[in-house]
Amino acid sequence: MQLDINADMGESFGMYKMGNDAQFMEFVSSANVACGFHASDPTVMRQTVALAAERGVSVGAHPGLPDLQGFGRREMKLTPEEIYDNTVYQVGALQAFCQAAGLRLHHVKPHGSLYGMACRSEEVARAVCQATLDIDPELYLYIMKKGVAGPLAEEMGLKVVYELYGDLDYDNQGNLVITRHHEALQPEDVSAKVLKMVQEGKVTSTEGAEIDISGSSVCLHSDTPGALEILKAARRALEEAGVAIASPPL
Amino acid sequence: MQLDINADMGESFGMYKMGNDAQFMEFVSSANVACGFHASDPTVMRQTVALAAERGVSVGAHPGLPDLQGFGRREMKLTPEEIYDNTVYQVGALQAFCQAAGLRLHHVKPHGSLYGMACRSEEVARAVCQATLDIDPELYLYIMKKGVAGPLAEEMGLKVVYELYGDLDYDNQGNLVITRHHEALQPEDVSAKVLKMVQEGKVTSTEGAEIDISGSSVCLHSDTPGALEILKAARRALEEAGVAIASPPL
Amino acid sequence: MQLDINADMGESFGMYKMGNDAQFMEFVSSANVACGFHASDPTVMRQTVALAAERGVSVGAHPGLPDLQGFGRREMKLTPEEIYDNTVYQVGALQAFCQAAGLRLHHVKPHGSLYGMACRSEEVARAVCQATLDIDPELYLYIMKKGVAGPLAEEMGLKVVYELYGDLDYDNQGNLVITRHHEALQPEDVSAKVLKMVQEGKVTSTEGAEIDISGSSVCLHSDTPGALEILKAARRALEEAGVAIASPPL
Amino acid sequence: MQLDINADMGESFGMYKMGNDAQFMEFVSSANVACGFHASDPTVMRQTVALAAERGVSVGAHPGLPDLQGFGRREMKLTPEEIYDNTVYQVGALQAFCQAAGLRLHHVKPHGSLYGMACRSEEVARAVCQATLDIDPELYLYIMKKGVAGPLAEEMGLKVVYELYGDLDYDNQGNLVITRHHEALQPEDVSAKVLKMVQEGKVTSTEGAEIDISGSSVCLHSDTPGALEILKAARRALEEAGVAIASPPL
Repeated sequence: MQLDINADMGESFGMYKMGNDAQFMEFVSSANVACGFHASDPTVMRQTVALAAERGVSVGAHPGLPDLQGFGRREMKLTPEEIYDNTVYQVGALQAFCQAAGLRLHHVKPHGSLYGMACRSEEVARAVCQATLDIDPELYLYIMKKGVAGPLAEEMGLKVVYELYGDLDYDNQGNLVITRHHEALQPEDVSAKVLKMVQEGKVTSTEGAEIDISGSSVCLHSDTPGALEILKAARRALEEAGVAIASPPL
Repeated sequence: MQLDINADMGESFGMYKMGNDAQFMEFVSSANVACGFHASDPTVMRQTVALAAERGVSVGAHPGLPDLQGFGRREMKLTPEEIYDNTVYQVGALQAFCQAAGLRLHHVKPHGSLYGMACRSEEVARAVCQATLDIDPELYLYIMKKGVAGPLAEEMGLKVVYELYGDLDYDNQGNLVITRHHEALQPEDVSAKVLKMVQEGKVTSTEGAEIDISGSSVCLHSDTPGALEILKAARRALEEAGVAIASPPL
Repeated sequence: MQLDINADMGESFGMYKMGNDAQFMEFVSSANVACGFHASDPTVMRQTVALAAERGVSVGAHPGLPDLQGFGRREMKLTPEEIYDNTVYQVGALQAFCQAAGLRLHHVKPHGSLYGMACRSEEVARAVCQATLDIDPELYLYIMKKGVAGPLAEEMGLKVVYELYGDLDYDNQGNLVITRHHEALQPEDVSAKVLKMVQEGKVTSTEGAEIDISGSSVCLHSDTPGALEILKAARRALEEAGVAIASPPL
Repeated sequence: MQLDINADMGESFGMYKMGNDAQFMEFVSSANVACGFHASDPTVMRQTVALAAERGVSVGAHPGLPDLQGFGRREMKLTPEEIYDNTVYQVGALQAFCQAAGLRLHHVKPHGSLYGMACRSEEVARAVCQATLDIDPELYLYIMKKGVAGPLAEEMGLKVVYELYGDLDYDNQGNLVITRHHEALQPEDVSAKVLKMVQEGKVTSTEGAEIDISGSSVCLHSDTPGALEILKAARRALEEAGVAIASPPL
């Protein structure tokens, strides 16, 4: 059994520090690197790619809405063309840092509200997928199973990695509950939740129901309070349960 | 005899229009496309690359200082690392629009104050050149002969295209006189100036001296008043003098 | 009979020019000056206030969404607190330019999507009104009669100026049809429309119905094609019909 | 004997946290609040003003260069008009939050590179001073004694508060050594340094010389590692030495 662990990284900006990329990079297999619209800047992007290269972590682009102040978590009504263009731009910028570091870009994962919009709206999903395909059809798309983006991406010929969320809640319909700030969580709770998702294909919703869930990568956020302990605990629990941690091969 | 005509394009931003790219694209052989820091946005970049593709015009990246309000014409004290990072980011973003359009990026030309800084400062020039090399060592660097950037670029192994400026003035030392706004010019004056540079390797400085000048591409700005007439006149004058207009092959 | 003519001004940004403020300022009685979020910059704001001072035109603040690329016309999901804060910030910035020019700020008019959001959402309207009151309770709020903002503003104790739109369309419900780009219009059509609104209190909707409309200020946009001719024609038609053009007194 | 303690505050931005304003506010007498150009945003500004109001701390505006990524610490070549305009804008925005909170704005202190530029360049200093005067001639200007800004401000009729820097170094010429990042310091070293400046009018330069220094407000930075302990220690040391901590009265 094999599982990818991905985390959003490279979210610092200028003098503003966020997350703990250097330590996080030791325990994940894939890094979703912010591309300067909702977080990050060119210097942070280079540094994050360098960290990933050092640790053998796969690098994905994490494009977001053009709203640094809102961290890409405030929905904006963009046209599909704008979403396509913004995605090409951001993925291209990160791809260049990979080229400069001798790496190949591995995947694209939309961030925050753009992620949610892509899961709910076919035209948003199509724009993100088309941008990804037009840059490099070998790129994986990371997305949750629930919603319109996954099936559409598969239909469009993209390689899709379905994500499990270890530190966010699901509602009864299997939708992620996206908040501007992440709540504090107990490492053992997250570990148990992840193991259950991986081994049983189930998760307990915010309303208490057992819902089906499936995926080959689990996402853990670095801005959750106690994030590093959660990540370490989840990885240890997975490995102890015989799950190998690795990103999907390009 | 052969000459490239390059122009800065894709400088509109959102609702704000600048230049006349659709018409300009018919008369140039290379387009330097702004990359979103001093001008442009992802939508404008896509549209400009599409125009160039349609017309068979070579597409170069035109990275600038991160100062949209100042149009990249206000000097900023960035570290060499920041200049490297900003260049990788911007060139990468434009490269992705080329990939999506089935084109290959042709060159990199720094914009405005970054151009001047690269000509005056070896560490700025080195940062721009290294970024260009690290993305794709086949990319041309467009730069003026005067200054430290050209020799350094050649030494670092970059393919350099030296530029002539048809619509800017040179001082006695052969430095360009960069202003925030471009002055109105007569098409016949610019044509005569360009022909003289190409045929005689001379230009008259602002102080009235005849100075040596050489290059294989002439730059004409689209934000000079009467820019289109100037471009048409210069191209006609060059062709009538037996100069073929074409960009250097990749 | 008296009518105010207001126009959105100060929408240039850096090197990017928009509108024709110098000429527009000769024919309006009130100017809504952009405050740097959706358009404008500090230099443009100072220059626009100076123009208004010279012409005796009343200066209002025209706060918008924080989206320069989208010109404030792309809806964003901000919290009421963010809308309050953004409004205080922008109105305060413009107020300072008025202070420096020896003028008193006259009114606040939300821009673009913020305007529409304020008309549709009571919590958005409340945030804009409270910000206006907290800065200076003597400030007028410019808003259209249709929607929740006007009644709420009156209830909160604000002085409200109801607006008529001369160059935008109304639907059958009396809602403005806000587009990213303004269509070309004939001066005589706009003049006739404005006169009818002022004299008969009626306007023809996009679906052809005659709907009731009332207000004491008419808005004319400077980015409509042919905007200056439209403004001149409308002013002349109003004056010929015996309507005095003046802004409401502070 | 009386001394003001001022600190730069309100430097968080969106999701990015900086400093420890809530605790810092308990020990300072004046707060220099960032205004959104080099740091802060409208929400942070409102919250910081509210904290100051609660604690009876005087609120000053802390305008900076328009460079959020560089935190206003990268010099930019702006024209004096641009500096004037940017200062009016930023001070005006903060003034509005004071008005809304029932406070009166107390002072203006340029930030980072703008501070250094004002001390070195008469035309920069003149632009900042004129903007301050034009908004409210009762506002204090906070500046260091060394340099051209202080004498010019006095000559222009501004009320000047000369600053001592407790956590930055001075060179032999009495110039501040401005760095992008602040070094870790020992609270007792800073306390001793501040006491010596206040009691003896002397400070030891980076080259080891004893140089003259004078001022009525000491600045302590909240982004120095251990900043809160330094502030508490310095305040305690000052009070134990009989120095009353208070901001200059408006």
